[in-house]
Amino acid sequence: MDNRAIGVFDSGLGGLTAVKQLMEVLPGEDIVYFGDTGRVPYGTRSKDTIIKYVMQDIAFLKTFNIKMIVVACGTASTVALPVVRDKFDICMTGVVDEAAVCAIEATKNNKIGVIATSATIKSDAFKKKIQTLEPNANVFSQACPLFVPLVENGHFDSEVAMLVAKEYLEPLKEAGVDTLVLGCTHYPLLRGVIQKIMGYDVTLIDVGEAASKHVKRYLEENDMLSPKKEGGKCSYFVSDSVDNFAHLGSLFLERQIGEMVNKIDIEKY
Amino acid sequence: MDNRAIGVFDSGLGGLTAVKQLMEVLPGEDIVYFGDTGRVPYGTRSKDTIIKYVMQDIAFLKTFNIKMIVVACGTASTVALPVVRDKFDICMTGVVDEAAVCAIEATKNNKIGVIATSATIKSDAFKKKIQTLEPNANVFSQACPLFVPLVENGHFDSEVAMLVAKEYLEPLKEAGVDTLVLGCTHYPLLRGVIQKIMGYDVTLIDVGEAASKHVKRYLEENDMLSPKKEGGKCSYFVSDSVDNFAHLGSLFLERQIGEMVNKIDIEKY
Repeated sequence: MDNRAIGVFDSGLGGLTAVKQLMEVLPGEDIVYFGDTGRVPYGTRSKDTIIKYVMQDIAFLKTFNIKMIVVACGTASTVALPVVRDKFDICMTGVVDEAAVCAIEATKNNKIGVIATSATIKSDAFKKKIQTLEPNANVFSQACPLFVPLVENGHFDSEVAMLVAKEYLEPLKEAGVDTLVLGCTHYPLLRGVIQKIMGYDVTLIDVGEAASKHVKRYLEENDMLSPKKEGGKCSYFVSDSVDNFAHLGSLFLERQIGEMVNKIDIEKY
Repeated sequence: MDNRAIGVFDSGLGGLTAVKQLMEVLPGEDIVYFGDTGRVPYGTRSKDTIIKYVMQDIAFLKTFNIKMIVVACGTASTVALPVVRDKFDICMTGVVDEAAVCAIEATKNNKIGVIATSATIKSDAFKKKIQTLEPNANVFSQACPLFVPLVENGHFDSEVAMLVAKEYLEPLKEAGVDTLVLGCTHYPLLRGVIQKIMGYDVTLIDVGEAASKHVKRYLEENDMLSPKKEGGKCSYFVSDSVDNFAHLGSLFLERQIGEMVNKIDIEKY
């Protein structure tokens, strides 16, 4: 048993979709969430900048009494995690490896689609991981740079969201993928539109859900589960104004945020 | 005569539309451009963060031999410029005041529309300035948060751009504005779409053009024009990867960027 919290961070608020999954899979665990809203988005930054930011995000979370860290950001997981993992003495899990495992389990025709930010797609991290685990898999990747701004402006199922999604997803549909990895934590909010375009026989892999299942297994295997079975608490920290957090955050979490949200200066870490 | 350069900065690459106008209006002037691509966008940040960033941007430009500074960013001009102007001993011009003058000169029915980022619209800076100069003016403001990501992803005249623009502009069209201020330096790249929706009898005010005319007048009045009549050189600095600069920058400047682009660490200033 281990009653320390789980640390979760993202470049912004998207990681809250992973927090939502964690709360469902592990309702007794306390969670400390940091959203780097002052420096969002990471997806368009250079590799050096992303690594610097991620080092600071982890250093901040480590000021709390935490037992593991979930990197709930596709860009940070793919670009920075392989580099920074060895620099800290704490277990970290990203959103790539477990999603790759889930995608391989789900596919029947070995045709797997991956959608994510430009930086994540450019890194080829999902494709490499999937093909390491299953060399016969055909992976079709597509950057969807407008999905994050669409979600952050409330376009979940509008005509505009539909039109943009069609443009991005049509090639994957034509390729005949039967499984699609939503490789960015913002994308579950477009799940309805994506499912409609891809068809209801295509399996969508939510990276936050995949990571949460991995966290549960890891904690079980290492006897690190919380003694509580439910009633886990979540603390929220952001690096810019907290004004919009409650509204937008509630959309990502799909529940009201009652707790206090605190602003910190991430450049100090 | 004064052969020092003009400093120009923006949160990203949008300010290059102002550089383009400066080059046309003052072809002999040297220009030092800084695009804070590592911390773009400013429009979604808090006031304190924007002020901190703008102080650093100005401190960096002041390391060069410059005679004035153009704040080619709507958000920085409205949120930070009034606060930081007195802290530096150099003439600074933003993109608000001159655009307000131009809008009042252009309107015949005293109905003026303003479109900009959420932060700029929230600050009411254009509206206040216009109504200070012309108390009878009716100002209709509209935030267009998706315009910047659309432009940065090459959506200049696509169906998506048209659909998004229609949603934002319809209320301004219905209000009967005869003049529309494009209050963000990205927006001139959507000029075609905006003009089509608003109608060809609506005058569009390009804030970069308005600022450039003001710079010219100021330099003339203070005998600070460059001795050169043409052949001004431009140096480019950014705070993140220079990889995309040449491509995207060329679109904003509407000409090829032949010069070297340098990356700097803006957090040091």
